[in-house]
Amino acid sequence: MSTTVSPLAPKKVPTMPEVAGVRLATGAAGIKYKGRTDVLLALFDEGTTVAGVTTRSRCPSAPVEWCREKLKGGKARALVVNSGNANAFTGKTGREATAFTAKLASAAAGCKPGEVFLASTGVIGEPLPAQKFDGVLDKLVGESAPGRFMDAAKAIMTTDTFPKVATAKVKLGKATVTICGIAKGAGMIAPDMATMLSFVFTDAPISAPALQALVSGAVIDTFNAVTIDGDTSTSDTLLAFATGAAKGAPQVTSAGDPKLKAFREAFADVLGNLSEQIARDGEGARKLVEIIVEGAVSTRSARRIGMSIANSPLVKTALAGEDANWGRVVMAVGKAGEPADRDKLSIWFGNTRVAHKGARDPSYNEAKVSAYMKSDEITLKVALGMGKARDRILTCDLTKEYVAINGDYRS
Amino acid sequence: MSTTVSPLAPKKVPTMPEVAGVRLATGAAGIKYKGRTDVLLALFDEGTTVAGVTTRSRCPSAPVEWCREKLKGGKARALVVNSGNANAFTGKTGREATAFTAKLASAAAGCKPGEVFLASTGVIGEPLPAQKFDGVLDKLVGESAPGRFMDAAKAIMTTDTFPKVATAKVKLGKATVTICGIAKGAGMIAPDMATMLSFVFTDAPISAPALQALVSGAVIDTFNAVTIDGDTSTSDTLLAFATGAAKGAPQVTSAGDPKLKAFREAFADVLGNLSEQIARDGEGARKLVEIIVEGAVSTRSARRIGMSIANSPLVKTALAGEDANWGRVVMAVGKAGEPADRDKLSIWFGNTRVAHKGARDPSYNEAKVSAYMKSDEITLKVALGMGKARDRILTCDLTKEYVAINGDYRS
Repeated sequence: MSTTVSPLAPKKVPTMPEVAGVRLATGAAGIKYKGRTDVLLALFDEGTTVAGVTTRSRCPSAPVEWCREKLKGGKARALVVNSGNANAFTGKTGREATAFTAKLASAAAGCKPGEVFLASTGVIGEPLPAQKFDGVLDKLVGESAPGRFMDAAKAIMTTDTFPKVATAKVKLGKATVTICGIAKGAGMIAPDMATMLSFVFTDAPISAPALQALVSGAVIDTFNAVTIDGDTSTSDTLLAFATGAAKGAPQVTSAGDPKLKAFREAFADVLGNLSEQIARDGEGARKLVEIIVEGAVSTRSARRIGMSIANSPLVKTALAGEDANWGRVVMAVGKAGEPADRDKLSIWFGNTRVAHKGARDPSYNEAKVSAYMKSDEITLKVALGMGKARDRILTCDLTKEYVAINGDYRS
Repeated sequence: MSTTVSPLAPKKVPTMPEVAGVRLATGAAGIKYKGRTDVLLALFDEGTTVAGVTTRSRCPSAPVEWCREKLKGGKARALVVNSGNANAFTGKTGREATAFTAKLASAAAGCKPGEVFLASTGVIGEPLPAQKFDGVLDKLVGESAPGRFMDAAKAIMTTDTFPKVATAKVKLGKATVTICGIAKGAGMIAPDMATMLSFVFTDAPISAPALQALVSGAVIDTFNAVTIDGDTSTSDTLLAFATGAAKGAPQVTSAGDPKLKAFREAFADVLGNLSEQIARDGEGARKLVEIIVEGAVSTRSARRIGMSIANSPLVKTALAGEDANWGRVVMAVGKAGEPADRDKLSIWFGNTRVAHKGARDPSYNEAKVSAYMKSDEITLKVALGMGKARDRILTCDLTKEYVAINGDYRS
């Protein structure tokens, strides 16, 4: 954990309500550091459904493989998350560590190992000393209590500079249900990589297939539309748990159920809020950058062009330098390999159009744009003029601090 | 031009011989700076053929569009290259500037405008004041002389820290022919992006289609296998000119001609040498990094995995930090989206295998690897164990200096 909070941290932090059917506890298992909270246990009432998405990496961590397998069952009674060790690229030992952790947790929680979900973040390639959970998990079961989402968010931090929480209350039928989410982001445990983890909890009664459809739909424009440096962790995991314990709420078995409309929007808002906080806490980030692509031939094309801009080191360093360098934006559009026509391209920084139809906008006021570029939050819009598709990506700038965090950690 | 030469600059610089049928001159047209050499004119004897490759950007510069069109003719009598202004994203004005420059050059050189080739590097989005070439090109025709390749290489530099030249002499039939090449690399003219330009000259008599096949083949494992930051310029251009003026050399009309074997190798060597110099002069580079991918299912797959590693900010910052962070290499392999199996993956830094079959190599000597990581030149090898295909990529590390060059240029 860094001692300096990102200047982009949200100014307001919500008070996290309880979610019926969810109890939480955090503790110190001494995975990597002594005396530091590094393990989160969440316990769920019987009947809780689970859904999730994991990294697209071809070299996933052992807990990711565990979760992918257990998600097929659709039932959850416990979640164990540790920081300090990612249990990634640990071979057979890694698989044994996940099985051992699940066995300990299932014994402590009184459920089947297949109802235990796991996530790990931290150093790669080091065996996870899962025996350190022995005793700790039993103790956490005894200490578990509702509503401790802020503690949970803190327990899973690595080099995150602030804990990430979001919540919403929304009507489902005549009942009010609650959604609480936590996330950790693009921080790094020396000497390893960023990992994005997020866990979302609700008391709405939603079947596992419906919850999966909800999650898969909601990540597209939230977690999947955020990039710090284009590097994908072996451990990225988002899990959603629905306890069904909200009193009077109707059972939902299809994501298309009209009753779910308000819930679907609130769920997407919570994911959007959490994923934006990840961009706000990008390593070394000094600016939150929103990239809007309009006029693409398809949404996929808009996404690829947006990601090409968002991941371009030359665009990101120019943003860090507070320069409205639209030439680099042209470059990033051009290299994306998607349909684009230089002579139809327009580019805005904030409200100012700096380039129009293949050339500098003659009316563009440099002083106004220069002042805008000093903001903490920058919107960069590209209109391609090729079609009607649109996309939005969140990212941050690339600063010397990023290089220092990721290069100087040994000194 | 930077005042500090890259520590990775080649220790030996060749003496550049003349190429029969090529004359060169350089001058100051005052495109951006006063009194600085910023224009190169090359003149070719009648009968000179030309071939080339240009950026894959969908938003190419005006001179790139000019070259693409004129390459169809296959004949060249003059090449004009300027630094200081890229004539990119300049709309109709840009197209007019290329036509005007070609007209001036053709009048001065006594050839058709369609036999004039153009390249520009520098600021984007500013109109190129092509009228400044008026008078200058006439003067350069008068001053042109053979063998001035080092001057030519210097004239096209932007923030390159050293001029890039390479040469070879090789038998073609019973004659000895000469190849001379120059390049400029990943330097930047504030406030814009890197551009890769290279021009190769030979007195071998090779038809335009055969020369094109030779160029297209040779760039695959040379210029196309080098990456600094994954950002593709709107202006990247490589042109090859064959004057046919070598005495006694047999005419070559097919790239598959057995007589061309030695020439083909020498040509690829010159391109390999120039492209390696570009990696050695990457912005802020302190290490030349060779990435070898073995055991891929196809060459295309190997290339994509190699590029994923080479362009990963987390791998590149770890290299800058002199850490053998193989966890980040696993991450970069995993995110490439190509066939890979964690449990078959092995990784070497230099001669030391640090990871083997899905886990840390137990015999790996950390002290030895730590010492190796301090070298100027690092080889990182990944064996996938999936197939037989192999690839090699050259890149450099990502340092705070890169961010400073590309972010702090306004201060």
